[in-house]
Amino acid sequence: MEKEFVFGHQNPDTDAIGTAIAFSYLQNKLGYNTEAVALGEPNDETAYALKKFGFEAPRVIKKAAPEVNAVMLVDHNEPQQSVSDIDKVKVTHVVDHHRIMNFNTADPLYYRAEPMGCTSTIVWKMFNENGIEIPEKLAGLMLSAIISDTLLLKSPTTTDDDKKAVEALAKIANVDYKEYGLAMLKAGTNISDKSEEELIDLDAKSFALNGHNVRVAQINVVDLPEALERKDAFLKAMEASSNDNGYDMFMLLITNILDSDSEALVVGSDETKELFEKAFDKKLNDSEVKLPGVVSRKKQVVPPLTEAFEG
Amino acid sequence: MEKEFVFGHQNPDTDAIGTAIAFSYLQNKLGYNTEAVALGEPNDETAYALKKFGFEAPRVIKKAAPEVNAVMLVDHNEPQQSVSDIDKVKVTHVVDHHRIMNFNTADPLYYRAEPMGCTSTIVWKMFNENGIEIPEKLAGLMLSAIISDTLLLKSPTTTDDDKKAVEALAKIANVDYKEYGLAMLKAGTNISDKSEEELIDLDAKSFALNGHNVRVAQINVVDLPEALERKDAFLKAMEASSNDNGYDMFMLLITNILDSDSEALVVGSDETKELFEKAFDKKLNDSEVKLPGVVSRKKQVVPPLTEAFEG
Repeated sequence: MEKEFVFGHQNPDTDAIGTAIAFSYLQNKLGYNTEAVALGEPNDETAYALKKFGFEAPRVIKKAAPEVNAVMLVDHNEPQQSVSDIDKVKVTHVVDHHRIMNFNTADPLYYRAEPMGCTSTIVWKMFNENGIEIPEKLAGLMLSAIISDTLLLKSPTTTDDDKKAVEALAKIANVDYKEYGLAMLKAGTNISDKSEEELIDLDAKSFALNGHNVRVAQINVVDLPEALERKDAFLKAMEASSNDNGYDMFMLLITNILDSDSEALVVGSDETKELFEKAFDKKLNDSEVKLPGVVSRKKQVVPPLTEAFEG
Repeated sequence: MEKEFVFGHQNPDTDAIGTAIAFSYLQNKLGYNTEAVALGEPNDETAYALKKFGFEAPRVIKKAAPEVNAVMLVDHNEPQQSVSDIDKVKVTHVVDHHRIMNFNTADPLYYRAEPMGCTSTIVWKMFNENGIEIPEKLAGLMLSAIISDTLLLKSPTTTDDDKKAVEALAKIANVDYKEYGLAMLKAGTNISDKSEEELIDLDAKSFALNGHNVRVAQINVVDLPEALERKDAFLKAMEASSNDNGYDMFMLLITNILDSDSEALVVGSDETKELFEKAFDKKLNDSEVKLPGVVSRKKQVVPPLTEAFEG
């Protein structure tokens, strides 16, 4: 069978990389010929999880079409977040937990989205549905993805299925998920050795909102005030990135993973900043606003922004 | 729980109506509050299946928003093929076996598409995955949908899962699926008592192909030459419908369900007719062309047309 790539979104996180590895394993068991690849290097948190469970980082590709005709997407569907030449290959499978936007195909395909906290939870269900055993180390990686996306089951995106998956996978992987999970999340919060330019690009996604190119980045920390000491440098980096990449708005969500609160920094035109304020019904104070309880870009940021921009 | 509608596409066929009833039943068992409705009256084949298994036709709705805030789609996703006010309601679930086109959401949702012959096959899998029993009569209706969409498992869209579903559902419904299936398909081939205007609208779908509004209708028959005696009247009706509805091309696929061959009639501009000829690598002769073995709009018509129109 002809080889297909399996990969997650650009600026990959633990779900994008971990679930690509898991879904590739599952599909190969089901008779496909796939290779898990990535659209970028693992971040600190993902590197921690890969190392813990003995996986190499998937090789990074810049383009798909030179090597394969068909691909499988995990943890994303929007072309803007995918491989640069996504229009040149056929998408045969998608497993995702995001909204669907600008995703069009000529042919029928396999598409499985569920409003769960993590794509690995859906893949866990698919392993069960197909009666395929999850190897111990892979279970650990899938567990890491769910812990990452749900901030240890505390994000409002968390569903009962995520909780069941975490229980089941922790058992297979033979780890105390709370202890391991906190250590893994903390491994991703070390911002001191990274520049602002790096930090605003680590976990950043672009969204086409009614003709506006909107960038939403997120950083996890354990100490919000410490992170905000670098506010001016963040704003400067966001301005520069917007100029270079044509973003109409750039929002940086800095999330305290311990108490699930966030602070947002926003740069953009007066128009887009007003739309931001409308979306969250809050006023920006010197480009900054507190967003208590907001931790999920997918569920708590993109929907209100979409509504405000389209309103 | 707030009520949601479940429905298939406009000009409903046995899959659209039968699977809406089946998916609504399944979702209610899973704790949702749904009502299966339809975007049109059942055709002769569907009426035959509903009567055989003791179902009333679902009530026909013209709009969703006056009654519900949220809907679940089966057997379609393209807004053009959905309820007229689809943009005014939230889509929470989709179960489908078509390409994905112009389907956008603000929020994550449940989306399950598989490249199977029939949506009911996917719903059959979902019943099994959730350990929910399929009542005898509902099994008969789901069986009817699969027989309809796969032309008794002869369409090239037919998969092993469709075959397994047919075997399993026929057993639950306690029918000889070959005998029943042929009788049901034949019930849908009586074209003698319908006008050409009715026939070209019975099973017709619109597609946005690179800015062109393309209509593809299909009629099942058991005697192609007899159907083609009405060619001039079909072409006239297709011209009139195109003028009234702004179609850039209208293709009518007349399919012999006994030998799985088709003849196509095409009206449109010189440009779209040339694109049609490019798509199938065949010349139209007096607006007509033989398409041996072509029975599936989804798999054998829309993909080549898409490629030609976008090429």
